[in-house]
Amino acid sequence: MSTNLTRTRRYVLAARPATTTGPIEDGVLRYEDDAPVPPIEDGQVLVKVEWLSLDVATRGWMNDVRNYLPPSPLGGAMRALGSGIVTGSRHKDFAVGDRVSGLVGWQEDAVVHGSTLSKVPDGVPLQAALHVLGISGQTAWLGLHDIGQPEPDETVVVTAAAGAVGSIAVQLAVAAGARVVGVAGTPQKCAFVRELGAVGCVNYREQDVAAAIAELAPDRVDVLFDNVGGAILDALLPHMAVNARVVLCGAVSRYDKSRGPVPLYNWFHLLPNRVRMEGFIYMDHKDRFAEIEADLLPRVRRGELRCQEHILDGLKAAPEGIQVLLSGSNNGKVLIRLGSD
Amino acid sequence: MSTNLTRTRRYVLAARPATTTGPIEDGVLRYEDDAPVPPIEDGQVLVKVEWLSLDVATRGWMNDVRNYLPPSPLGGAMRALGSGIVTGSRHKDFAVGDRVSGLVGWQEDAVVHGSTLSKVPDGVPLQAALHVLGISGQTAWLGLHDIGQPEPDETVVVTAAAGAVGSIAVQLAVAAGARVVGVAGTPQKCAFVRELGAVGCVNYREQDVAAAIAELAPDRVDVLFDNVGGAILDALLPHMAVNARVVLCGAVSRYDKSRGPVPLYNWFHLLPNRVRMEGFIYMDHKDRFAEIEADLLPRVRRGELRCQEHILDGLKAAPEGIQVLLSGSNNGKVLIRLGSD
Repeated sequence: MSTNLTRTRRYVLAARPATTTGPIEDGVLRYEDDAPVPPIEDGQVLVKVEWLSLDVATRGWMNDVRNYLPPSPLGGAMRALGSGIVTGSRHKDFAVGDRVSGLVGWQEDAVVHGSTLSKVPDGVPLQAALHVLGISGQTAWLGLHDIGQPEPDETVVVTAAAGAVGSIAVQLAVAAGARVVGVAGTPQKCAFVRELGAVGCVNYREQDVAAAIAELAPDRVDVLFDNVGGAILDALLPHMAVNARVVLCGAVSRYDKSRGPVPLYNWFHLLPNRVRMEGFIYMDHKDRFAEIEADLLPRVRRGELRCQEHILDGLKAAPEGIQVLLSGSNNGKVLIRLGSD
Repeated sequence: MSTNLTRTRRYVLAARPATTTGPIEDGVLRYEDDAPVPPIEDGQVLVKVEWLSLDVATRGWMNDVRNYLPPSPLGGAMRALGSGIVTGSRHKDFAVGDRVSGLVGWQEDAVVHGSTLSKVPDGVPLQAALHVLGISGQTAWLGLHDIGQPEPDETVVVTAAAGAVGSIAVQLAVAAGARVVGVAGTPQKCAFVRELGAVGCVNYREQDVAAAIAELAPDRVDVLFDNVGGAILDALLPHMAVNARVVLCGAVSRYDKSRGPVPLYNWFHLLPNRVRMEGFIYMDHKDRFAEIEADLLPRVRRGELRCQEHILDGLKAAPEGIQVLLSGSNNGKVLIRLGSD
C-alpha cells in the first residue's frame, strides 16, 4: 500500500550545538516547509505524525556524543519519539489507519521501518503512548520497581514529582503501598502531587528541602526517585535510611550549563547508611516493555494513572519546547501537537 | 577455670572528642597502668591481648554517634578488635591456651563474654585474625564479591591499594581473573601493589589520577573498590564503564576534617553509564563470616594472601596509631603489639 504524498514539513538537525547542554544556537535546527518524503521501501511505513514527545534525551541527541543511542544524524529530521496514524505501509504488520508510536522525528510525515514502531492499544489516546504508556511510564516503572523496590509502608521521595516521569512514579509508589513525599517547584505542582496520593510535597523554591524532608519523613527515606540531581539530591542524601536506594533517573539540574556544575557534598552519607545509588536508562530494557505495558495498560484504561500534558501547538514550537523542558517551566509532559498550526 | 590476675594496663575512653573526625584532644583517652581486672563471671573469658587492630572505625566509636555499633562507652576500655591467648575461662567453648580474637578493647587483659570471641585457626598467626582472616579480609571479600562482582577480564581499580583492605581486594580481584589497577600514595606502595599482581598502579601524589587511569584502563573501569572517597573518587567517576559498580568501602579522605569536605562534581556520570554506587558495612554480614573464612583460610595457609603490617609497639602507642592511620602515612594494617614495652 502506498500514498501520493511527496512533500512535508520538518526540522533538520543542521549543525551540532556549541555546547552539550543548555540553549541551542540559531543554525542548529533548520526548518523546512517543503521537504521531500522518500518513497516507502519494502518493510517501511509512512506515518502521519500527530504528537511529538519532547524529552531531556532529545537535547542530548543533538550532540556529537554517543550516549545510549548514536547522535541524531546531521542532515536528517531531528530524532524524537512521536505517535500518529499509518498513511502508507509496505510492512506486513501495519495497515493504513493503524495508530502507532516510535522514533518518527521532528516531521509531519515520517517514513520509518515497521520494526521500529509499536501499535498504540485501543482505548488509549495517541499521546498516552508518549507518556503513561510510553517513555515516561516505562521509565517510572523500571526505576521504581527494579531499582527502588519500595516495600509497603516505606517512605519514597520523588523529585520533579509533578513532571511526566515523576508524577507516574508517585502514582506507582502510592499503588505499591508506600508513603510518598514529592518535591516540586510551585504550589500548583505540589497541589497536583498531593492529588496523586502523596502525603506531602516540598516546594523547593520556597522551602529548605532538608528541613522539610526531616519533618515529612521523620523515619528517613527508603527510596529516592531522583529526576533532578544537584543541590536537591545533595540535600536529600543525609536523610536516606539504612539500606536505602537512590534511583538516578534524571539530572535536569545539569542540563542548563549556565547554573554551573552542582557538586554533591553529602556523598559520604551513602557509606554508613549502606545506600545504593544507581543510574539507569530505560532503553536498556526493551525486552521488558511488553511486560510493563501489560501492567500499566489496565491502570491507564481505568484512569488510575494520570499525567499532566504541557501541549505546544505546531512543529515550529518544538525548539521552544526543548527550552521549556530544560528550564523546568513546564507542567507535566511536554508534547507538540502537529497539524494544528 | 580462673586466674589470680587482678591488675592490668588499659586506655579508658574518658571523654568524647570535640569533633567527630580528625585528631583527638588530650583528655579523651586516659592511660591507666594499674587498672582492676574484674572477676570472670559465668560465660566470660579472660584474654591476654597480644595484638590490637587499629581501624578507621575505631575513631568513629569515640564519638557520641550511633553508627553500626553504639558509641564506645565512657569510662570503659576504648573499644577495639584484638587477638590473644585465653588465660582464664568460665565458658564451655574456651580453655586456657586457646588463641582467640574479638572486641577486646585497648587493654592488656580483657574479660569478655565467650560468645563475642572467635578462635584463630591453626597455622595462622594471631595478627592475621585482625587482617587477612579478620576485618580487612572480610571487608575486602564482601565489597569485591557481593557488590563489585568482577567478571574475568574486567578492569578493577582499587584505591588505597596498599592498605590492609585494599591490598586484599587487589589480590582477590587478581585471583578472580580481573585486570587490576591500584591507586596508592608512594612509589613504594605502588611497587607493592604491582607485586600483588596489579597491572599498574597510579601514584596519586605524583600523577594526574584521571589521565593515568585513562591510560591504564582504556576500556574504562568495570569495578571501583574505593577506600578513600573525595577527590580521587571524583576523578575516577568519569572513567567508569557502562553498568560499572562502585564499592564505597571507606572514605579516609573524610576523616581528617582539616582538609574540609571534598565534594563529587562528577556524580552525573553515574546516570548515562548506568553505574551502581553502593556503601556497605562489613558488620552487617556476620552470618556470612564463616563462609568467607572458609574461602580465605586455605589461601592464607598457602601464603597467597599477603598483608603488610604496620606495627607499633606497646599499648601506649595506640593513640598515635590512630593518627598514623587517618593521615594515611601507614604502610598496610596498623597493629599494636602489646607486652613489648
